[in-house]
Amino acid sequence: DPSLKVFTLNSNKGLAQEISDHIGVTLGRSSVTRFSDGEVQINIEESIRGCDVYLIQSTSAPANEHIMELLIMIDALKRASARTINVVMPYYGYARQDRKARAREPITAKLVANLITTAGATRVLTLDLHATQIQGFFDIPVDQLMGVPILAEYFSQKELDDIVIVSPDHGGVVRARKMADRLKAPIAIIDKRRPKPNVSEVMNIVGNIEGKTAIIIDDIIDTAGTITLAANALVEHGAKEVYACCTHPVLSGPAMERINNSKIKELVVTNSIVLDDEKKSEKVTELSVAALMGEAIIRVHEHASVSTLFD
Amino acid sequence: DPSLKVFTLNSNKGLAQEISDHIGVTLGRSSVTRFSDGEVQINIEESIRGCDVYLIQSTSAPANEHIMELLIMIDALKRASARTINVVMPYYGYARQDRKARAREPITAKLVANLITTAGATRVLTLDLHATQIQGFFDIPVDQLMGVPILAEYFSQKELDDIVIVSPDHGGVVRARKMADRLKAPIAIIDKRRPKPNVSEVMNIVGNIEGKTAIIIDDIIDTAGTITLAANALVEHGAKEVYACCTHPVLSGPAMERINNSKIKELVVTNSIVLDDEKKSEKVTELSVAALMGEAIIRVHEHASVSTLFD
Ligand SMILES: Nc1ncnc2c1ncn2[C@@H]1O[C@H](COP(=O)(O)O)[C@@H](O)[C@H]1O
Ligand SMILES: Nc1ncnc2c1ncn2[C@@H]1O[C@H](COP(=O)(O)O)[C@@H](O)[C@H]1O
Repeated sequence: DPSLKVFTLNSNKGLAQEISDHIGVTLGRSSVTRFSDGEVQINIEESIRGCDVYLIQSTSAPANEHIMELLIMIDALKRASARTINVVMPYYGYARQDRKARAREPITAKLVANLITTAGATRVLTLDLHATQIQGFFDIPVDQLMGVPILAEYFSQKELDDIVIVSPDHGGVVRARKMADRLKAPIAIIDKRRPKPNVSEVMNIVGNIEGKTAIIIDDIIDTAGTITLAANALVEHGAKEVYACCTHPVLSGPAMERINNSKIKELVVTNSIVLDDEKKSEKVTELSVAALMGEAIIRVHEHASVSTLFD
Repeated sequence: DPSLKVFTLNSNKGLAQEISDHIGVTLGRSSVTRFSDGEVQINIEESIRGCDVYLIQSTSAPANEHIMELLIMIDALKRASARTINVVMPYYGYARQDRKARAREPITAKLVANLITTAGATRVLTLDLHATQIQGFFDIPVDQLMGVPILAEYFSQKELDDIVIVSPDHGGVVRARKMADRLKAPIAIIDKRRPKPNVSEVMNIVGNIEGKTAIIIDDIIDTAGTITLAANALVEHGAKEVYACCTHPVLSGPAMERINNSKIKELVVTNSIVLDDEKKSEKVTELSVAALMGEAIIRVHEHASVSTLFD
């Protein structure tokens, strides 16, 4: 279908190529460079008049650069008369700034939603939003894909014995439950409590993990503090071995050092965020979301349901 | 007046302090830092409920970082119930991307106007927009200040003999005329022409410059190619000495090397953009726009005319 065009910006070029290959189209020609003073210079090098454009960009670090590239490209596509502008965001940055946790804080996740819409996007396709409510920050359609099936499939093929799926906090229980259903395993929850003010946290574990292979699941692993403490607590409480997985490997600051020094045997992530060289480690396995996102694009383009992808 | 609050972001902290001093208020307390993954974290540390907030930020390099800081701060101010949010932009970045010069280009200056409005700004106060039409990109009031009076005043105090004000291209003639009126001097224009395709440009000079002290004026000096070629052409054609001035010292890439190696005796700029250390040179003189911007803020706050500042 010549009206379907896939373009990419700079965050995930490899994934964009894989997605195009999956769909069976060639990536749209465009150049995204910088003027001498660092301002973004974009040029779309083929006609997209009347086309449905799927634009791939994660707003991963450097988030501000990636967001501005995205907004400027949407503006260019709009002015070049694209019929629809479908923003494909494997990782939606600023998703943790999704509410006013303290007085006089911004809600940047909502701001970014408004910016994307103002620039001219007509639809968003994303993966594992940190808070599902962010869909409601948009007044344009948002389809959310799930990483759990991909992660579950990988562990299922490993044929591990006697596993338990662990949520590293109470907020992640729904996600752990979904993973556990797919792997027909029980769940456990890390229950952090501070017994008294100024006394350090106690890592309680709700559920039976003794002698089991624990798989901790989270949506984002950023500095890896939570997940590595959880892994060590699981081993102390008798888990046989500990795996960890997440959809979005932010892995900033001390993350890799913590993971490499932790009791985690293997960390499984997706390519929603590119792992630069210093984040590649023998412990880290990367799974591709290209087939998932490519299939979703085909369905959106055919006006078919995306949610049935998970049946 | 306790309802007038001045806040700053990271682009021009020194200027913001000067502006606050001029107005006689203390700078609003806020912190603009980064999370571990580089996302902007903003906290406003005093109540601004019902206040008129003047927020100082140039969207100079790194433009994308400075724009996102600005938008996130506007969002935070809006959610903290500011009465009005007046964005004070000494330098408006992306101003040169103000039209579709080629097919399928973005118009980023318009995009940025929409982003600022969407975030919640109620007014913009700026200085020497690259194209005055950018005022019309906004549907909120925009006051534009002029750098020419400050630059002219500096040269007037130097008491140079027999001066001529030079526009480095046809687009800058109106600005050169304004400067010339203030200094009671004639003007000249650098008239670049390419006699035939693939033949190098000829620097013609329209107007009499022989034996005179030439002052070239531009709004932005970026890579300094135009201005240094103009200076050298002026000397070749018999100018006694050459000064240059501009409002916005972008000075990217080879700019400083070109200026230091050129026939320019002194380059006079304003602090609309901070000069980092490698841009400080014996040849460069920096003038402050703090009094101008401070006075404009006072007038806006008193609902008085800003344009009379230039009478
Ligand atoms: N990029 C970030 N890195 C770390 N913390 C963040 C980031 N963005 C927002 N937050 C904070 O994370 C908290 C929300 O995280 P959560 O409870 O996991 O939804 C809020 O208090 C935010 O201030
Ligand atoms: N940051 C920038 N640096 C250099 N050139 C730019 C920049 N932004 C836009 N332009 C280009 O500058 C031209 C407009 O400049 P002007 O003719 O001086 O208004 C357009 O062709 C733009 O593509």
